[in-house]
Amino acid sequence: MAKKTKYVKVSFLGGVGEIGKNMTVIECGDDMIVVDMGITFPKEDSPGMDAIIPDITYLKQNIKRLRGIVLTHGHEDHIGAIPYYAEELGKVPIYGTALTIGLLRRKLEKNAKKCNLVTVAAGDAVTLGNIKVEFIKVCHSMAGACALAVYTAGGTVFVTGDFKIDNTPIDGKKTNIQRIAEIGAKGVTLMLGESTNVERKGSSTSERAVGQTLESIFAANKKKRLIVACFASSNYRVQQVLTLAHKYGRKVVLAGKSMKSMVEVASSCGELNVPRGVIVDSIGKLKPGEALILATGSQGEPLSALNKLSKGEFNKINVGKDDLVVLSSSPIPGNEKAVYDVINALFRKGAEVIYDSMNDIHVSGHAYEEELKLMLSLVHPLYFMPVHGEYRHQHKHVEIAGTLGVPSKNIVIPNIGESYSVTPKGFRKHSNVPAGNIYVDGVILEDGDAVVRDRRSLAEYGMLLVLAAVDLDRGKLCGDVDIVARGINLTDEVQRNVKNAAAEALRSADFDKSDIDEYAKCLKKAVRKLFMKDRQFPIIIPVVVEG
Amino acid sequence: MAKKTKYVKVSFLGGVGEIGKNMTVIECGDDMIVVDMGITFPKEDSPGMDAIIPDITYLKQNIKRLRGIVLTHGHEDHIGAIPYYAEELGKVPIYGTALTIGLLRRKLEKNAKKCNLVTVAAGDAVTLGNIKVEFIKVCHSMAGACALAVYTAGGTVFVTGDFKIDNTPIDGKKTNIQRIAEIGAKGVTLMLGESTNVERKGSSTSERAVGQTLESIFAANKKKRLIVACFASSNYRVQQVLTLAHKYGRKVVLAGKSMKSMVEVASSCGELNVPRGVIVDSIGKLKPGEALILATGSQGEPLSALNKLSKGEFNKINVGKDDLVVLSSSPIPGNEKAVYDVINALFRKGAEVIYDSMNDIHVSGHAYEEELKLMLSLVHPLYFMPVHGEYRHQHKHVEIAGTLGVPSKNIVIPNIGESYSVTPKGFRKHSNVPAGNIYVDGVILEDGDAVVRDRRSLAEYGMLLVLAAVDLDRGKLCGDVDIVARGINLTDEVQRNVKNAAAEALRSADFDKSDIDEYAKCLKKAVRKLFMKDRQFPIIIPVVVEG
Repeated sequence: MAKKTKYVKVSFLGGVGEIGKNMTVIECGDDMIVVDMGITFPKEDSPGMDAIIPDITYLKQNIKRLRGIVLTHGHEDHIGAIPYYAEELGKVPIYGTALTIGLLRRKLEKNAKKCNLVTVAAGDAVTLGNIKVEFIKVCHSMAGACALAVYTAGGTVFVTGDFKIDNTPIDGKKTNIQRIAEIGAKGVTLMLGESTNVERKGSSTSERAVGQTLESIFAANKKKRLIVACFASSNYRVQQVLTLAHKYGRKVVLAGKSMKSMVEVASSCGELNVPRGVIVDSIGKLKPGEALILATGSQGEPLSALNKLSKGEFNKINVGKDDLVVLSSSPIPGNEKAVYDVINALFRKGAEVIYDSMNDIHVSGHAYEEELKLMLSLVHPLYFMPVHGEYRHQHKHVEIAGTLGVPSKNIVIPNIGESYSVTPKGFRKHSNVPAGNIYVDGVILEDGDAVVRDRRSLAEYGMLLVLAAVDLDRGKLCGDVDIVARGINLTDEVQRNVKNAAAEALRSADFDKSDIDEYAKCLKKAVRKLFMKDRQFPIIIPVVVEG
Repeated sequence: MAKKTKYVKVSFLGGVGEIGKNMTVIECGDDMIVVDMGITFPKEDSPGMDAIIPDITYLKQNIKRLRGIVLTHGHEDHIGAIPYYAEELGKVPIYGTALTIGLLRRKLEKNAKKCNLVTVAAGDAVTLGNIKVEFIKVCHSMAGACALAVYTAGGTVFVTGDFKIDNTPIDGKKTNIQRIAEIGAKGVTLMLGESTNVERKGSSTSERAVGQTLESIFAANKKKRLIVACFASSNYRVQQVLTLAHKYGRKVVLAGKSMKSMVEVASSCGELNVPRGVIVDSIGKLKPGEALILATGSQGEPLSALNKLSKGEFNKINVGKDDLVVLSSSPIPGNEKAVYDVINALFRKGAEVIYDSMNDIHVSGHAYEEELKLMLSLVHPLYFMPVHGEYRHQHKHVEIAGTLGVPSKNIVIPNIGESYSVTPKGFRKHSNVPAGNIYVDGVILEDGDAVVRDRRSLAEYGMLLVLAAVDLDRGKLCGDVDIVARGINLTDEVQRNVKNAAAEALRSADFDKSDIDEYAKCLKKAVRKLFMKDRQFPIIIPVVVEG
């Protein structure tokens, strides 16, 4: 051991000040580990993008010290970025429980062989250089979720990951509060606590409650065909649907690629128990009361099975008055319009639809206020940082930690790119590390910010192409200026104004008339000025050719 | 009177299958009236637009029979389209209560003089040809709201407008349920019932409850500066804030143009009682505990006062730890991200923020399920049509009407553009009338659909300009193809592929090589094909010049 005292250092590459794209780096001495590597699903402010992933420059700079990646669970916002960086990560070992690794392997496709995937069980600990990481079972909306105790020479960091306290989980595997209490009693230096549901009072409802609601629906609708939509990743939800279908004599058709894939992966690793013969390939000649369609698309995703069903575009299935559709989900903020569009379309087809206005058709996988308090009490950390949330969530989580006796000087709200050591004197803030949004549109974009910026401008104001042929020798325009516009209301008046302004600018402006690029600059400036008067800022592309 | 029996005919130009853009036409014999003429605020599916207004072709076709426009209340989704059509409406009289007409006059600006605005009081009836319209006081989130009883030779149509049942309204003016009961007892042929909050169980809370919450905030935060954000149009909310400010010795600064404008209009027509001296021009040297800023921007609008305050861009006011911000509002679906961005920014500045997670800081102005039942019971219509809502709301409202004894054959869910007569035998559906979305971006767009479609494509995929110079005589490309792209990830590889595909297509394709337009078509086709392979659909603009 080196004589120098070691401090544990934590850097935030994502998942703070935002929901999504979780990624945290923990270092001590020469050893570095990464907790999670997730994506964010783009919203309307980054149109047309497939995903947003973390900037991993900091990892690349320190790749020789990187001992491993540990995954809390298999949701996209925790593992989704790994396939994009499989090349860079090379043989760095990636640890997770069976379902997490199973899903990751499926996502990696051919690259899975190149990666060093290691399956662990809850309760296991792995040694990564001088850092030891213990996986502790927690409940969440999918199986295999773990909190992590990261033991270092600079103290223990406790990472809650996404969790809830479910005392009656479907698989009987409860959040291991005994072990968390033990770790807390031995002394936790720093806790990173998830904050997603901090604004919700009380405690979350058990997943089992959804099963009870579902059963009452099965019992009351024996003549109707059932269509149930939920997240494919919610293996407990899927389990309950399959169990009930079996009990009530229905055959289940899986609709949507990710649903089929998840059922395969989850059942192969023992996290899903599929009753024999309950899943069939198509509804064939089944009567409505004998069939159930288990579909993806509970968030209204345009290409999902439920969306296609609502339009009559799925396997020739005609949704109508014999159907009862259950959206076992709640719209993620920002998805409301898409979800309600699907619901409206289903109602218009004559189907009955049960959705979020009804209680207990969906429960959250994230701890509410009282569960967060319980976690803070069990872990009893010296220092605390709220993570996984927008600033308002982190802020509220700080208040809660305060009421539980964590001194305010021992709490920091970390921002993306920030890096802290925890020393006996308190937090020490280091200089920021590179961090930010990397956009993916098919492939990783080199200058995604510019692409996003342009797309936003194009959406807001449209574009205008101004085409001019010039005689460089005489320094004059040949003929008229031509205009092509998209996303602009190009009235005759606007066209006339643009042409006149362009011609006038080329005539009167003072520039080197032998330089073709100067004409383009002059055109752009003149047309931009014209639109700015109306507070319009279309993208203007001048094209000047020798006429 | 003509011998022929007259039936009342109702046509829907907006406000059905959607929230917003309310506009209904009611006709009997030679007389036609319009109820409301509102706008919809555009969402992300129509980027950059200022407003969406109804198509009024049907009105223009029948302008000679149009006897008047009657307004239920002064919200934008009920009066906002009038200024865009002031020219077309000419001297058609427009009726509304004082606040409604006051706000409309303000919106019309110079055009107000050209319009025929008529102020009525709740309880008044106006005669429009052979149609009589009675204005009946209802409670809503703003003063001056009325339901309408439309008396015709074909029976009475009862239009609820936006309403709630508030038994303790701020101004003491309750929904006139006695008069509604009387009208119902005399026989209502058709009721058009608003459906906005049909999914909410029980009854809405009285506006007065907000005052109680606000008072507890005033009482508990005497040292802090208060910033309260709400809809400018919520005159009752504004009233309560002004009254409390006066009681607790605070001066109020109005922040935001629409707030100032609303306070002027509402106080000039007696719907707002401003305590003398409570409003000041600036916070000047007031201590935090002596000041209150009443701001627009409770929906996170980018240019609103609250948004500017959150960025330190409003009148040099520096929001910080001395401030308590109250968002007396609830995010309208679709606005969540904008609202939470503002809240996050305020927290980051150190302010405390109270927002929708807390009860009774906002109440809705729309009736909940039990209030809708009460209305249906009072009006007791023979026929019923649910309006003002998405299809799911209308569908749920039908269910409710069914439980109250309206036979299902006497209920229709109207769609936009549909037109119905109510006859003793039931509904008679006429051929559809022209109806739809007209987009406004500064001015009314002639072909707004195309502009919106292009903007969406540009946002999703970007645009690519392909520039080629050709020798028409030899039928050959001169030099290389040039490319300009925006909103596209134009890697070297993509550039190379586009150039090659374009050159190859021009060389090998079979077309009339003396026709310059044919080159453009060929280029576009080749490049489009290239991108389609990756399921990308950018807008492609070929430009071909003679080289």
